[in-house]
Amino acid sequence: MSLDSLLDLRERTRAFASARDWEQFHTPKNLAMALSVEVAELAEHFQWLPTGRAGELAQGQQEAIRQELADVLLYLVQIADKLEVDLHAAALDKIKLNAIKYPAPISSRPETG
Amino acid sequence: MSLDSLLDLRERTRAFASARDWEQFHTPKNLAMALSVEVAELAEHFQWLPTGRAGELAQGQQEAIRQELADVLLYLVQIADKLEVDLHAAALDKIKLNAIKYPAPISSRPETG
Amino acid sequence: MSLDSLLDLRERTRAFASARDWEQFHTPKNLAMALSVEVAELAEHFQWLPTGRAGELAQGQQEAIRQELADVLLYLVQIADKLEVDLHAAALDKIKLNAIKYPAPISSRPETG
Amino acid sequence: MSLDSLLDLRERTRAFASARDWEQFHTPKNLAMALSVEVAELAEHFQWLPTGRAGELAQGQQEAIRQELADVLLYLVQIADKLEVDLHAAALDKIKLNAIKYPAPISSRPETG
Repeated sequence: MSLDSLLDLRERTRAFASARDWEQFHTPKNLAMALSVEVAELAEHFQWLPTGRAGELAQGQQEAIRQELADVLLYLVQIADKLEVDLHAAALDKIKLNAIKYPAPISSRPETG
Repeated sequence: MSLDSLLDLRERTRAFASARDWEQFHTPKNLAMALSVEVAELAEHFQWLPTGRAGELAQGQQEAIRQELADVLLYLVQIADKLEVDLHAAALDKIKLNAIKYPAPISSRPETG
Repeated sequence: MSLDSLLDLRERTRAFASARDWEQFHTPKNLAMALSVEVAELAEHFQWLPTGRAGELAQGQQEAIRQELADVLLYLVQIADKLEVDLHAAALDKIKLNAIKYPAPISSRPETG
Repeated sequence: MSLDSLLDLRERTRAFASARDWEQFHTPKNLAMALSVEVAELAEHFQWLPTGRAGELAQGQQEAIRQELADVLLYLVQIADKLEVDLHAAALDKIKLNAIKYPAPISSRPETG
């Protein structure tokens, strides 16, 4: 019976920040700024690649990139927590909005009967 | 019996991109660039706030911010998928590394016995 | 007898902010955040291009991109001003550091006698 | 008889990239991505500051920040060069547009006769 991943990370980041008395620094603004820094560290791995397909990455970059992806997720979970946003519900709502904004071509829609 | 939130979003973003034939654009590099754009749209809401606490936000910004958080998560899930990274596992590993890099002060550690 | 371009823009951005009483918002932190937002608006024009060469841009994007480049420069000039950094001198120093870090191959160096 | 600062940097960045055969990497897209990375390295210095005023910076950060400002300018000059944008002219045009979008309050306008 494991906790949902996003809820699990919310609990863990709360405990981590609390144990270090870091809540004082964790305004949504500061967390958004930290998030943008982590995203740039992720982007840096791709900036000079010709097309940016995964195969162009050097061997050693995989683990570094994995850690940057984790950093991005951890800050994202913390901002959402401060703003009392349920990330999963928000993402489901956004997918619905995107489906209206960018309708799939009819040919690719599944048959319905 | 619901799917874990991050796995659920991975399935949904795959289906969404596939139905629109968007995989051709979704190199990790392009997705990282799109992610950085969404993070900036999130940051824009905070840029002129005095300290950036949640209470300084205007009423109408809450829903816009919720949508930006969703966009960030959706691109993050897609990059991780292209690079075959399990986001939850990566985040758990990163929390462990962070705990070594930034040890909690002894006073705040739970008693163990 | 025209003023140097960077000094000219420093004067103009000072006058612009002063006339609107905007100095109160223009901490280096807030300006850095605004700068990152403008850079993302620039990057957005390139995010789905196959290689990102200039020829892949649509006709109408040229003027929009020109305005984003201007926004980036205007915020950069303002941050440098707040921190009392001479941008031209800083850039010349950085080029010297970069030349040490990344020496040009001998074949490409100009003959010296 | 010195060259204008932005034109001077354009000449120097051209020579620097050419001597290292780096033009092949310097598409506008890649340069925009590199620019966003440098801006994040600048922002990183401010992310946890309470208000972000210059006085909150630690002593040693000044030189690091000066170098980041230089990096941002150098990439900006190179993108503009690739896209044949005159940065100074673009910035002057943008200031005019901004003045229309955000008119100064009458009380702060200079008297005209």
